[in-house]
Amino acid sequence: METAYQTLLETHKELLDKVSRAIADRTFFAVYPEHPKAYPEDGTVKAQDWLNGQTGNHFNELMQMGEEDWVGDEVSPFLQELLAIKYPYFTPEKLVQNAHDTLKTWRNASPEMRVSVLLDSLERIRHRFFDIAFATMHTTGQSFMMSFQASGPHANDRALEAISLGYEELKRYPASAEWEKPMGKFSVKINKSWNAIGRGVGLVIGCSTFPVWNTVPGLYASLVTGNPVIVKPHPGAILPIAIVVAEIQKSLLEHGFDINIVQLAADTNSNPITKDLAEHPGVRIIDYTGSTSFGNYIESIPGKVSFTEKAGVNSMIIDSFSDIETAMQNMTFAASLYSGQMCTAPQNFFIPSNGVMAGGVKMSFDEVAQKFTDTLRGLVTNPKMGPGTLGAIQSINTLQRIVDAKDLPGTKLLLDSIEIQNEEFPNARIATPIVLEVDAENREVFSHELFGPIVLLIKTIDTTHSVMLAKDLAQTKGAITCGAYTTDKETKSYITEQMNEAFTPVAFNLTGPVWMNQNAAFSDFHVTGGNPAGNATFTDPAYIVRRFVWVGHKIME
Amino acid sequence: METAYQTLLETHKELLDKVSRAIADRTFFAVYPEHPKAYPEDGTVKAQDWLNGQTGNHFNELMQMGEEDWVGDEVSPFLQELLAIKYPYFTPEKLVQNAHDTLKTWRNASPEMRVSVLLDSLERIRHRFFDIAFATMHTTGQSFMMSFQASGPHANDRALEAISLGYEELKRYPASAEWEKPMGKFSVKINKSWNAIGRGVGLVIGCSTFPVWNTVPGLYASLVTGNPVIVKPHPGAILPIAIVVAEIQKSLLEHGFDINIVQLAADTNSNPITKDLAEHPGVRIIDYTGSTSFGNYIESIPGKVSFTEKAGVNSMIIDSFSDIETAMQNMTFAASLYSGQMCTAPQNFFIPSNGVMAGGVKMSFDEVAQKFTDTLRGLVTNPKMGPGTLGAIQSINTLQRIVDAKDLPGTKLLLDSIEIQNEEFPNARIATPIVLEVDAENREVFSHELFGPIVLLIKTIDTTHSVMLAKDLAQTKGAITCGAYTTDKETKSYITEQMNEAFTPVAFNLTGPVWMNQNAAFSDFHVTGGNPAGNATFTDPAYIVRRFVWVGHKIME
Repeated sequence: METAYQTLLETHKELLDKVSRAIADRTFFAVYPEHPKAYPEDGTVKAQDWLNGQTGNHFNELMQMGEEDWVGDEVSPFLQELLAIKYPYFTPEKLVQNAHDTLKTWRNASPEMRVSVLLDSLERIRHRFFDIAFATMHTTGQSFMMSFQASGPHANDRALEAISLGYEELKRYPASAEWEKPMGKFSVKINKSWNAIGRGVGLVIGCSTFPVWNTVPGLYASLVTGNPVIVKPHPGAILPIAIVVAEIQKSLLEHGFDINIVQLAADTNSNPITKDLAEHPGVRIIDYTGSTSFGNYIESIPGKVSFTEKAGVNSMIIDSFSDIETAMQNMTFAASLYSGQMCTAPQNFFIPSNGVMAGGVKMSFDEVAQKFTDTLRGLVTNPKMGPGTLGAIQSINTLQRIVDAKDLPGTKLLLDSIEIQNEEFPNARIATPIVLEVDAENREVFSHELFGPIVLLIKTIDTTHSVMLAKDLAQTKGAITCGAYTTDKETKSYITEQMNEAFTPVAFNLTGPVWMNQNAAFSDFHVTGGNPAGNATFTDPAYIVRRFVWVGHKIME
Repeated sequence: METAYQTLLETHKELLDKVSRAIADRTFFAVYPEHPKAYPEDGTVKAQDWLNGQTGNHFNELMQMGEEDWVGDEVSPFLQELLAIKYPYFTPEKLVQNAHDTLKTWRNASPEMRVSVLLDSLERIRHRFFDIAFATMHTTGQSFMMSFQASGPHANDRALEAISLGYEELKRYPASAEWEKPMGKFSVKINKSWNAIGRGVGLVIGCSTFPVWNTVPGLYASLVTGNPVIVKPHPGAILPIAIVVAEIQKSLLEHGFDINIVQLAADTNSNPITKDLAEHPGVRIIDYTGSTSFGNYIESIPGKVSFTEKAGVNSMIIDSFSDIETAMQNMTFAASLYSGQMCTAPQNFFIPSNGVMAGGVKMSFDEVAQKFTDTLRGLVTNPKMGPGTLGAIQSINTLQRIVDAKDLPGTKLLLDSIEIQNEEFPNARIATPIVLEVDAENREVFSHELFGPIVLLIKTIDTTHSVMLAKDLAQTKGAITCGAYTTDKETKSYITEQMNEAFTPVAFNLTGPVWMNQNAAFSDFHVTGGNPAGNATFTDPAYIVRRFVWVGHKIME
């Protein structure tokens, strides 16, 4: 079987070449169309039926054997009801043992073989996009459209990016070469060979809000470089990634591999197994998305190669507008999208106290703030736009955070959460963003992440002050994104330069249907790895090459 | 000035292309000829004079200003006398502050500019090869030939390798691109730009035995990727790298840069500043060569990207010989070269108790051991070969280690240190290798590094047992190299496979003038990073890409 995969199939090769060029060019390129319309018409109906069939039952698509129990306590944020889907439970010891049993085979499989298995798994996953979308909706609270795009095509594109870059790095050096050293009258010849060997078992720890998009880059990066992976989803969002794991297992089986090369490690909030897995000496690579405190703990475990995405505080620097209307629409949408539960959402809006220029007209701080709250109110109360933009709130803790935010000292409530109706899901856990005004002096308030639909309009002295604060927060607390509006070329350069020093990407003057929250595969690096928001980047070369090791041998005869 | 360096000079470009191809091919290639004969005839004489002029004086080539003191207590292992050369002393705080003051300029210089400065510095260093050789001799105890090669051409080649790979990675993605996303009837266009930004101030901590060869890869890798560097040599071997730092400073000055982009941080054994520098929040990247315990400490400092080369226990697996004569010559030379003070030297020679086949004839363990000690004795007592191969002992602690080794329980002394004469340096600190026989049962004896001229011949059950022990030691204690002699193809495969699992390179059946101790630039990765001997590799892509960060910006208008 292996012999058939010493070279890539022509279709696989074409795809990888295309992706490889796109990654090098960084111009737009999407392999998987992002709109549901590009997929079968009956997808939604079938997936709804499928989900109805899952609730209250055992998820039986995984091929992992010998479970000790069935666990699961996911709650749908749209229904506020238990899904009551149960997943097989294995002890950490058993999971690591299973993974180790597959280590040799997977490591020794040719890169071409691994690439084939993985590309085929993406094809399988493509046929599950609608199921994954419904699973994502009813665990994360994302709207259908976001669920479909983020967990479906966008995630598959990110996986493809990891596979492509992985293959490129694995083939970077020759398998063997004749080395010759001239020594004057004669020369010495040595046969050399080089092997790219996976570091060992990988662990990928998922989060509750983007259970697929944030998991597949690390998962596929570890797999393509020869490492078996244990996927430990957040107990609140297991189903979407369970489908992905099941499809990879099917692809492994089809190609004659042990399905334990990828395992799902389901657990519950009351009996977490994450630390046991992370600290297990048999685990060598850890990918993590989640809180800063847990991420710091993951990074501190000795003897592991770890890739983290932690929390950040994202800023919007408001200097001046050419067209305040379209800018406001874009900004309020960015803040409202999935109710501010994106790691890329803007939280801190820095506005000079003496106002800003908008289309040549000076507007006061209060006028800008008013415009912001008006636009936001208009968006969320629009029955066609509001519910689909906001989705639902994943965690009850986020609701509490909104309540607490209103008590933050020295803040002025400009807009409270508005009671709105989601026609399709009357029981949905909804909260429209609250908007607080705060003075820049009151730094404690805005110096940490307020995860969820909480927006702060911060009154600064001027744009230089705004930039200084945004930069300092990025350097000390981390930032994944930054937005800015300015019509001034020099200000643009200044912001770029300053945020470069905080290793934070800036999106300038966005209007229309693109938002600072979005980081596209093949073009946008996600998280720079240079500030406290995380040490890893989707997907830069470091994200790949640290997962395997070059070992060279010399043979004289 | 900068504008002249938006593209590379043709000569620089040619050189980098050549090196880049060599790195990709991994066939032999040396830019700097390794033999002194390729350099000016009067080099040796002039360098000897130069060194005589340095002793007892201030080293005044550095352009760093504002020193607080002059320090230095290097001792020549060949003379066993203080060199009494003094170097400027700066507090850690001052060094980090100086480095920070240069951060912006160096980061913002184009990759082409940085490459030009660095390639020019290598040209300058080339003219100092003889001075560096004498400086290396009289600090490390390396013979003249090894000092010349390791600290001169071989080190420059390694630096060139880092510059080339650095430039390649810095140019991997475009500076800007037009990104276009089709949205049905219209499309969204965004200007994107990508910047490769150095992480921050680098610290390179040198060792006492290879003060240049082990320092320049990290030094040049950090510099080319935009990071100012503080070079903290071992207090016992400052002079060789002080010359290198001075030449880089001259190149910086010539190109109009602040010379503090590279600083020498000299200290003494009694007042070490390494920890203060390493823990300083202003230091972001650390390169380290030295002991395992200090290396583990370096790796544990939070918030740093660290590259370590620590200690390992290198094995020689003896299974069978086609020609035992040439093999014995090679092995004993490998063990004697620089008196076993190379991190790549073999220490543990595993030999089956029931003997080995040599040219079709069965030889008992005792016969093999006898052959080994006879060959070794012949080498070290040969007046033409011995002193030049052994060099001198860098540290007094190593002499004590030899004394202590003879008391190791359960060992049998097969060969004691032999009194030999170094005609040129009658006071040289010399010790020929001792050879101890030990049973494989007596694991405590051979389970850690016995740095220096100490060889263990370990009696195992059979080759499988030998391999098992070598692998286990590599996995638990680390290994940088491994040697093996076998005439059996299957045994060769078995050893390769097993040592792959310990991420340890194997050199098979070496004879003639190449030894397992040598790792050549452009072809051999040095340290795999996959076992406890270190986390970094000269020079794989991970060694480069972790030193800088990709930051991408999006601009809509």
